[in-house]
Amino acid sequence: MTQTPDDDFKIDLRSDVTVELVKHSASDADVLFAARVSTVGEQSLDELNKDPERSKGLINFLLRDRHGSPFEHNSMTFFINAPIFVFREFMRHRVGWSYNEESGRYRELQPVFYVPDESRKLVQQGRPGKYVFVEGTPAQHELVGRAMEDSYRQAYQTYRQMLAAGVAREVARSVLPVGLYSSMYATCNARSLMHFLGLRTQHELAKVPSFPQREIEMVGEKMEAEWARLMPLTYAAFNANGRVAP
Amino acid sequence: MTQTPDDDFKIDLRSDVTVELVKHSASDADVLFAARVSTVGEQSLDELNKDPERSKGLINFLLRDRHGSPFEHNSMTFFINAPIFVFREFMRHRVGWSYNEESGRYRELQPVFYVPDESRKLVQQGRPGKYVFVEGTPAQHELVGRAMEDSYRQAYQTYRQMLAAGVAREVARSVLPVGLYSSMYATCNARSLMHFLGLRTQHELAKVPSFPQREIEMVGEKMEAEWARLMPLTYAAFNANGRVAP
Amino acid sequence: MTQTPDDDFKIDLRSDVTVELVKHSASDADVLFAARVSTVGEQSLDELNKDPERSKGLINFLLRDRHGSPFEHNSMTFFINAPIFVFREFMRHRVGWSYNEESGRYRELQPVFYVPDESRKLVQQGRPGKYVFVEGTPAQHELVGRAMEDSYRQAYQTYRQMLAAGVAREVARSVLPVGLYSSMYATCNARSLMHFLGLRTQHELAKVPSFPQREIEMVGEKMEAEWARLMPLTYAAFNANGRVAP
Amino acid sequence: MTQTPDDDFKIDLRSDVTVELVKHSASDADVLFAARVSTVGEQSLDELNKDPERSKGLINFLLRDRHGSPFEHNSMTFFINAPIFVFREFMRHRVGWSYNEESGRYRELQPVFYVPDESRKLVQQGRPGKYVFVEGTPAQHELVGRAMEDSYRQAYQTYRQMLAAGVAREVARSVLPVGLYSSMYATCNARSLMHFLGLRTQHELAKVPSFPQREIEMVGEKMEAEWARLMPLTYAAFNANGRVAP
Repeated sequence: MTQTPDDDFKIDLRSDVTVELVKHSASDADVLFAARVSTVGEQSLDELNKDPERSKGLINFLLRDRHGSPFEHNSMTFFINAPIFVFREFMRHRVGWSYNEESGRYRELQPVFYVPDESRKLVQQGRPGKYVFVEGTPAQHELVGRAMEDSYRQAYQTYRQMLAAGVAREVARSVLPVGLYSSMYATCNARSLMHFLGLRTQHELAKVPSFPQREIEMVGEKMEAEWARLMPLTYAAFNANGRVAP
Repeated sequence: MTQTPDDDFKIDLRSDVTVELVKHSASDADVLFAARVSTVGEQSLDELNKDPERSKGLINFLLRDRHGSPFEHNSMTFFINAPIFVFREFMRHRVGWSYNEESGRYRELQPVFYVPDESRKLVQQGRPGKYVFVEGTPAQHELVGRAMEDSYRQAYQTYRQMLAAGVAREVARSVLPVGLYSSMYATCNARSLMHFLGLRTQHELAKVPSFPQREIEMVGEKMEAEWARLMPLTYAAFNANGRVAP
Repeated sequence: MTQTPDDDFKIDLRSDVTVELVKHSASDADVLFAARVSTVGEQSLDELNKDPERSKGLINFLLRDRHGSPFEHNSMTFFINAPIFVFREFMRHRVGWSYNEESGRYRELQPVFYVPDESRKLVQQGRPGKYVFVEGTPAQHELVGRAMEDSYRQAYQTYRQMLAAGVAREVARSVLPVGLYSSMYATCNARSLMHFLGLRTQHELAKVPSFPQREIEMVGEKMEAEWARLMPLTYAAFNANGRVAP
Repeated sequence: MTQTPDDDFKIDLRSDVTVELVKHSASDADVLFAARVSTVGEQSLDELNKDPERSKGLINFLLRDRHGSPFEHNSMTFFINAPIFVFREFMRHRVGWSYNEESGRYRELQPVFYVPDESRKLVQQGRPGKYVFVEGTPAQHELVGRAMEDSYRQAYQTYRQMLAAGVAREVARSVLPVGLYSSMYATCNARSLMHFLGLRTQHELAKVPSFPQREIEMVGEKMEAEWARLMPLTYAAFNANGRVAP
């Protein structure tokens, strides 16, 4: 994060996204409870824990044969910071996701903007559906860093100028770029998260190829890391079955 | 619950439903966190608790003006026992609900059946959309109790007979009545629960009339009692605003 | 369909299900329009029809790489007659499906019941998740036919007896079996229908095995036949890609 | 629309949104068919048309008592042109809506931008939940028009500069503002549209106040006009019942 002074504001340039697991009620046992009601009725946690190999096998079977509903009786809430263009893609996920995002109508938005760092491949090759990304040259990185910063600063200055003149926030924000950071609470369950991860991450174990934009994949990877800790058996089965959501 | 012996099985007759709150991650603070991200960004729990009157006012405002999404970042899982005809209505609720029910394909179903008790009004008057229920006579109650028990026992006997002859459970169950008890896990959030309660309970504070079947209302009342304890401010605001889900 | 006289009613026994395509707004062009807005903006139908091979390729690509949303901008409404136990499974499909079913609260239900015909395999072998169905013996078929009819008639007689005594329909129906026929309007789109078909039909082209109950599969096959006529390119691509919904 | 020449591109400035009804399968009869299956079973169109007053009464009853599902068996597809900040709000509507939007990953985005015209109230007064908008002064309008145009042009120039240097579209677009026009197909049904209109339009008949941003309301008004023509009885009942979606 670098801070650039200006007349009366300074803009922050960031290359990362942040994901915080705010709260959760999610464990592999939730899947087992729900699945076993179909076959043996309600069970105690003791019974569930009696035979770990059997539990592993059941979760694997559910994922393989696409019995999706047992993976819905759990809940994870994330607090996410990322550029608007990431949230635009994120909110295309409608089922099993709940969102509350910072509002440009109710708040003055802060000057925090995205610039790709050196690890971000800048050049797209191939054709739709088969894009490959390759490294940018130092000159390209230099251009992107400088051009973005200038453009962001100018846009934010215009925003501030309109606010100062008494123009409503919801009108003035029109000039703010999709590289501006926003924040939101997003709540999901293991099933809807698996669906997200199947589409928004690339992974060597994936049976079906995905071509996510890198920045939303970064969010996905961080959510995945949290989820893997909460539901290790489910996570292992997801990978073992080609990362296709049931 | 009465048990009636028979050749080789006894049937249970019940008039109640049961609802157990299995797990939850649900509090009024979840609503406040999500709502305030729109206006002031992420906040600590301390800040949230600083001004209880303000919290109450915010939740009330959200409900009144139908800002529904802040009520979705929470989760409640219920284990429910009720007759099949209740579950048939229950599963019409698609959004914000997850279900896993006992399966007549995987399990031999147990002979537990519903009969209305004396408190159940047996007689329907009026026309569609304006039905009123009135007390049944003792003779009607006597008839219903006896006729149902006979019919249930005969149906279950037929079921057992087919199973004994090697017929698949999923075929044999065709004769089992919708008064048979089933069980399921149902997971929801405060918003989807409010929607359910608005339609499936009658209440003097309701702005819009509802005409639920009594048996699903009994399930609704038990879920409502659990939820009211978990999220008292939200519950109060739901009632204060005419029990219309946002 | 056979009709059996009785005191004052006769019951119908059926072994089939019916599916009528009531209305639709669904064609392969709907998929193409929606998909191409991503890449080339709005297009005329003429442009779309110019290059059929390209259209076929695009639909195939969308299905293969799980770009599901272009398959949602279309609509099919079916009128379906089937036993209650089929509708119980059907309504587990929540997303992209709308339902309106005949109500046992508002109508006196008619005595039409399901009995499996000779083509229905009656005997289940193996264990959960790996069930195989094999032919029933003539004796088993004879038993099932006779036992079901007797049980259905007795249940319906009890229903009528309670109605005659002034008991509300919604109470009296408790004794009616899940083999009773009901009817409903069900509206879906190509994406939600593919999801249904992937789970509720068995097919040699399916990449993932499914074990649907035969009776819901019969409904699925009839919907599939209608859909295949409306959207032949999409249908071919669904089969070519292992019958996994995008 | 004014066009401003530049080095090698010219930007379009617009103040309107456009909504085209691309296709539809939607009529009041669809509601009646679906509703009557509950009470009298399948009916012919002739029967439905026999008694127009009764039809009107039934639709009114359904809306008043929140029987929402009969309003889902219909479909409307719109092609919409509007600024990104409108689509950001639009896509918060998850249930009963399908979207396909122009993609900044697959296409070079065109320089068409939003500026408010004289009818747009520029100044926000009051506090969250009770905002009122009042006229801007000529000086404010002049500032907004000029500042936005300058900022948009500079941002688009930066975008073009990065593209010219070989930077991927998905990276370069970070600098583009949310006032940029995008286009999408959006498919809904009468129920999900009513929900949208209840929240995203202000109307003297509304029982519950809404405070939509003017630009999304403009989209809503145009969709409403199309829908009112297709389903006049449903539309009248929506207004008569306070514009609350069932």
